Amino acid sequence: MDLWYTEKQTDSFGITAKVKRTLATEQTDFQKLDMIETAEWGNMLVLDGMVMTTEKDEFVYHEMISHVPLFTHPNPRHVLVVGGGDGGVIREVLKHPSVEQAVLVEIDGRVIEESKKYLPSIAGQLDDPRVEVKVGDGFMHIAESENAYDVILVDSTEPVGPAVNLFTKGFYAGISKALKEDGIFVAQSDNPWFKAELIEQVIKDVKEIFPITRLYTANIPTYPSGLWTFTLGSKKHDPLQQQRSAELDSKYYTEAIHKASFALPKFVDDLTK
Amino acid sequence: MDLWYTEKQTDSFGITAKVKRTLATEQTDFQKLDMIETAEWGNMLVLDGMVMTTEKDEFVYHEMISHVPLFTHPNPRHVLVVGGGDGGVIREVLKHPSVEQAVLVEIDGRVIEESKKYLPSIAGQLDDPRVEVKVGDGFMHIAESENAYDVILVDSTEPVGPAVNLFTKGFYAGISKALKEDGIFVAQSDNPWFKAELIEQVIKDVKEIFPITRLYTANIPTYPSGLWTFTLGSKKHDPLQQQRSAELDSKYYTEAIHKASFALPKFVDDLTK
Repeated sequence: MDLWYTEKQTDSFGITAKVKRTLATEQTDFQKLDMIETAEWGNMLVLDGMVMTTEKDEFVYHEMISHVPLFTHPNPRHVLVVGGGDGGVIREVLKHPSVEQAVLVEIDGRVIEESKKYLPSIAGQLDDPRVEVKVGDGFMHIAESENAYDVILVDSTEPVGPAVNLFTKGFYAGISKALKEDGIFVAQSDNPWFKAELIEQVIKDVKEIFPITRLYTANIPTYPSGLWTFTLGSKKHDPLQQQRSAELDSKYYTEAIHKASFALPKFVDDLTK
Repeated sequence: MDLWYTEKQTDSFGITAKVKRTLATEQTDFQKLDMIETAEWGNMLVLDGMVMTTEKDEFVYHEMISHVPLFTHPNPRHVLVVGGGDGGVIREVLKHPSVEQAVLVEIDGRVIEESKKYLPSIAGQLDDPRVEVKVGDGFMHIAESENAYDVILVDSTEPVGPAVNLFTKGFYAGISKALKEDGIFVAQSDNPWFKAELIEQVIKDVKEIFPITRLYTANIPTYPSGLWTFTLGSKKHDPLQQQRSAELDSKYYTEAIHKASFALPKFVDDLTK
């Protein structure tokens, strides 16, 4: 029997990946969770029918959401990750020796548990002593935090289901309050081919709260269109004037990629105006 | 009835696109040609089961294979396009006022005819008086040309079927001979996620013939992995020192993208070493 996982990324387009076997499938308290062993991408985490991460291409997303802000900040010590239960962002954050504490607030504990079980190369650093894992609502954690973090990374699902509050101006205002006076935040902000209006809205909202707002991109093959965007809001440090030199173990991020990722294709740049 | 076109881009991964109707399907003298009207991408040209171009995302490929070398060359007057029967590269080449003559050598006349019929926004400039269309073998045309072109663009299919000769060192040597003393060529060179060895080989071969050899990338959603590479060989002008300022009607290319496209993700950069 030939099994294929097909994800409709829009009503009329999608990807399809050959499945060796289904490792886990369940309805958690928050979403449908599937863990699939694929032939092309290794183990793949799927939430509510959307690919979240795969063993083969996860490094792109996790490096790019982390190292761009962390190398922009001169001395990141306290980092918060909202979402990101697979642990990949935490793994990259811990590569920065300045980081004393990395807090993960993931609403769905099952994502953490299943990632530790089936994605050990991604989730393996969640037990590091510098990491504090909280299973809870990231929106609430942000609302209760003040002047607490140097960098906040929003590694959310799409703005449907449990992540809907994470794409609101109120959330960005909360992030600003939760950040220290020279804090930086980054949120994944979907793709410009199918979700142009969402990007326009995120940029517009973040611009109203952060003096420095920039969009950057990375290539993620298993995400819709292969071109992913990240929105960065910063109180003081401009990512185009990178603060520290990058010397770390990476497969995608380089100093040149850091700068180049902010050069936007014209039709994408137009969304930020 | 719900029709979907599914392309297996590897043995175990692919894309799938909803089909409104099939416009044409035939076996030409060289390859299987399908023209499909899709719901997401508009009309789509498929050769031997591989997406060649679509109305919605064609601008990326056509702008990036053309404008990077054409803005690098100080005064491109004579341009050759090998392959490219859909006419998209010619359309972009003609945006440069310095171009006096653009020669298209496409081996399969049916690609030209069907593109004119079903992809008029792409093929519409093939009848421009500056364009000379030759239905014939690009490899032979190159072999018979000497000191003739400022820029040569190789817009081929994959290195299977009719394009197999276009990925050989002999072909690159012929291109060097066909170029003028400060000529530049670019060839599409597939994607680094599934075809890393091909890219390594192309880079190695081109380096042996051209003093300046560089790889650059662009995001093309309907191509495998969404991350496409182009290999540029140049006798004199370095694309990192862009010669002319870019002022043209574009949707992807900008001066910033020109430079940024040469910043390679680390795992891609490693293929060029």
